[in-house]
Amino acid sequence: MTGMLYGLGVGPGDPELITLKAARIIREVPVVAVPIAKAGAESYALGIVSDLLRPEQTVLELLFPMLKDVSAKQVHRQAAAQAIAAELQAGRDVAFLTEGDPLLHSTFIYVLQHLPDGLPVEIVPGVSSVTAAAAQARLPLVNANQRLAVIPTTFERLADLRQIFQEFDTVVLLKFHRLIDPLLDLLDELGLSQQTVLVERASHREGRVIRDARSLRGESIHYLSLLIVQTNK
Amino acid sequence: MTGMLYGLGVGPGDPELITLKAARIIREVPVVAVPIAKAGAESYALGIVSDLLRPEQTVLELLFPMLKDVSAKQVHRQAAAQAIAAELQAGRDVAFLTEGDPLLHSTFIYVLQHLPDGLPVEIVPGVSSVTAAAAQARLPLVNANQRLAVIPTTFERLADLRQIFQEFDTVVLLKFHRLIDPLLDLLDELGLSQQTVLVERASHREGRVIRDARSLRGESIHYLSLLIVQTNK
Repeated sequence: MTGMLYGLGVGPGDPELITLKAARIIREVPVVAVPIAKAGAESYALGIVSDLLRPEQTVLELLFPMLKDVSAKQVHRQAAAQAIAAELQAGRDVAFLTEGDPLLHSTFIYVLQHLPDGLPVEIVPGVSSVTAAAAQARLPLVNANQRLAVIPTTFERLADLRQIFQEFDTVVLLKFHRLIDPLLDLLDELGLSQQTVLVERASHREGRVIRDARSLRGESIHYLSLLIVQTNK
Repeated sequence: MTGMLYGLGVGPGDPELITLKAARIIREVPVVAVPIAKAGAESYALGIVSDLLRPEQTVLELLFPMLKDVSAKQVHRQAAAQAIAAELQAGRDVAFLTEGDPLLHSTFIYVLQHLPDGLPVEIVPGVSSVTAAAAQARLPLVNANQRLAVIPTTFERLADLRQIFQEFDTVVLLKFHRLIDPLLDLLDELGLSQQTVLVERASHREGRVIRDARSLRGESIHYLSLLIVQTNK
């Protein structure tokens, strides 16, 4: 019988923030698959669940390198999906772990896109870093009829944010670690820097909250950081 | 010693989608507080965790009625926060339950805003209905540099959506159950209805997914529904 692929969100970092369902499935499956950026690298997702794993389980490391070339990336995604398919076809259930949620800026989406048709998949949602960051900063995200935007920051589309800050009550910015200075210029110009909070590695024991974004200028920012901008505060 | 207030997200509906941390705290606290819309009403959040509760725990029902008048609502929010404060000052820990996440369109935000200063609060994030709905529909929300918007639908601001559908890759619409027909008109006009999926009561055993939004015209929609619009599909 074909195995089942579980796309499992293991939450933002605190091992207690995984769901009962994810914990159960991780204990039950023979194969746990994790994405890694290069050979020998540690998987953040695997670290979150390390206390649940047993020595007899197979950990399948799948290489998703950071490459500029799209077709080179596709080769790796295809290979990862094939490696998972081989386990399923051999009758073994596989839990593919992703930090946060498996359908929100996650490597699991590529697995899903490249998996051969007809293989059974179940997706288990997880606590995302967006709400975990708000919890850690004790900052309401949105309420009543307020609007939330979640936006990876890119240099090319930085200027778009002007309009978006007008339309949305709360804007969560991701992947800005290399763009912090131009982003702060924009926030300063719009009078929003004092309404901007940085959360680094939400819920992780080494996580931290910085409440005045202006102090971040010129600083080195951890890539697992996000900014919460409250435009109407 | 003053008790601790926990703002606990209990996830979207499936009792297995609560976190290990929320389950532990619910088992430990003497008082579980839940919002209800009217006297005698059942709490959705309480139903999710009913298997974890013990008879000796106090369930504190707090009334948050649906009222048009803002100052009348404030009176109830104030009273709820006071009732919680009284428990904390008597040295009892209180877990305030919210479905989904406590800082994302949740009653807990009002409690936080009205709680007297200086009382200890810890917020435990939960799986939100947004990612649970995507999991149930097996629909990637956003990937790479894609942008996500989460928007409660209001008649007054329906026309704003034109612009937002252009700026965002995925738009999740909430609270549209009374506006389904004008919303479908707009989606049809923009050629988006076939890229719109409805998820009703995500992760709940009676939850369902409807993949072609056009079939919803004139239908009665459950208020715990959301629409996922993929603008670039």
